[in-house]
Amino acid sequence: MKNFADRLISAIEKKGNPCMVGLDPRIEQIPDFLPSSDIEQTITNFNTLIIDTIKDIIPVVKPQIAFYEQYGIAGMKAFANTIKIAKDAGLIVVADVKRNDISSTAEAYANAFLKEGSEFEVDCITVSPFLGRDSLIPFVESCKKHGKGLFILVKTSNPGSGDFQDVILKDTNEPMYVTLAKMVDDLGKDVIGGKGYSSIGAVVGATFPEQAEVLRKLMPKSIFLVPGYGSQGGTGEDTILCFNADKFGAVINASRSITFAHKDKSISREDFTTLIRTNTESMIADVTSALKI
Amino acid sequence: MKNFADRLISAIEKKGNPCMVGLDPRIEQIPDFLPSSDIEQTITNFNTLIIDTIKDIIPVVKPQIAFYEQYGIAGMKAFANTIKIAKDAGLIVVADVKRNDISSTAEAYANAFLKEGSEFEVDCITVSPFLGRDSLIPFVESCKKHGKGLFILVKTSNPGSGDFQDVILKDTNEPMYVTLAKMVDDLGKDVIGGKGYSSIGAVVGATFPEQAEVLRKLMPKSIFLVPGYGSQGGTGEDTILCFNADKFGAVINASRSITFAHKDKSISREDFTTLIRTNTESMIADVTSALKI
Repeated sequence: MKNFADRLISAIEKKGNPCMVGLDPRIEQIPDFLPSSDIEQTITNFNTLIIDTIKDIIPVVKPQIAFYEQYGIAGMKAFANTIKIAKDAGLIVVADVKRNDISSTAEAYANAFLKEGSEFEVDCITVSPFLGRDSLIPFVESCKKHGKGLFILVKTSNPGSGDFQDVILKDTNEPMYVTLAKMVDDLGKDVIGGKGYSSIGAVVGATFPEQAEVLRKLMPKSIFLVPGYGSQGGTGEDTILCFNADKFGAVINASRSITFAHKDKSISREDFTTLIRTNTESMIADVTSALKI
Repeated sequence: MKNFADRLISAIEKKGNPCMVGLDPRIEQIPDFLPSSDIEQTITNFNTLIIDTIKDIIPVVKPQIAFYEQYGIAGMKAFANTIKIAKDAGLIVVADVKRNDISSTAEAYANAFLKEGSEFEVDCITVSPFLGRDSLIPFVESCKKHGKGLFILVKTSNPGSGDFQDVILKDTNEPMYVTLAKMVDDLGKDVIGGKGYSSIGAVVGATFPEQAEVLRKLMPKSIFLVPGYGSQGGTGEDTILCFNADKFGAVINASRSITFAHKDKSISREDFTTLIRTNTESMIADVTSALKI
């Protein structure tokens, strides 16, 4: 399979923007016009409607697995359905799973999400680096073998992300995220595609633009997955430091601000799809105008 | 529901040992005498046989979710079945999931594993602290509400765990795991049961006894989940520093060295169950003799 970074950049070029929509179902907020007796079907229908509404304008979607796991087997079936529907719609699928474990277990996680033919097979996943470099190697190897990608957590978008990610290390006199960024850059060296980017990327929150500027320089070949836009307060302007001078190198995610913007569950199907479409177009306009593309 | 720490200590008292067996299915190594055309059934039968063989001598089991996720929906059904069978056998169930995410997502994960009535409901899960203290609060709140427990990663058993967990922080001149341990101790203050232990515990690898000694003092009320015994090289003697003077405060896990000790897949049912039983008894003897109980 073609290098993940190349596939992602191609999709961004084709759609003309680097926006990503999060598919994070909250059953109690899904509009009334969708059936609700069967959880698998309700979530699948909800995601299908969103995908159908925006598949011609965005390159990539990001289901967050926690929102599926909370509904047990029905939720996991909806997760598998969502992956298939998004792929069939020609979208790149990044599963936000933040997995991390020791070698043999990391390999099992890699098999779950990156191995060809797996029921939960996606194009790319997020992983946490907490257990150390050796815990990431099975994921990197799986990316090489299957043409997949990773976004390794480096600086997350939440207020408390600084507790461990920002601590200054005695040896280097620099924050932890600098050490992490250097590791990501190094892990990505063997997976650089024809378009100059590596399939090993980093998660860098839109809520911390100053850190993004530093991190962009430390990981010139890595694509950033940028959460925190929209509901968490990040703006298009905040995200520009996540991009390289070539205007590539980042994908900007919004979830709730696109898919759960409706205030009233009794919203009609037409008003709901109009809202999803309008919010996505606004985000695209905001991000592309900040980027001047 | 009764405080998790109290339930765990009671189970340890009843069985007379603090040993935990990991249920991590590897389909290609499951003995031939178990059916193999249906993955859900094969894994469920394998785990049922293990649970039936050792349920009278061990207090707690630990399914590692990666080994189920890799088999898609069939694997997740086997995970749900395994939880139910273990609970019905009177065992405490700790799901090794190492989840971690920002607030609303952390809440969804807590709902998946700790909320009463959830299909994947267990007694306790492992979580990672990488995203910071705020990312752990929804899990702690769920423990308070549902009588559940957490083991927060502090010092993992893998060779590379030092990459981030051992770095010396400039501010404190101490390793990261010390900061983590202080946070775990603090988070656990409101969930201390009648037996004196908190439901918020820590993962501390048997492969690093020196760190265990330091960590034991920093988290006097926390129970340690100690991986690394057996296949990873930890011995009963290595684990004693994880316990308090009262001989409580730790559960020692072994997975592969108990459940995949057979060299030959053509092993008979009788030889297989004898091997599981013997290996579990040997581990119990090793740990209890090191502890002098």
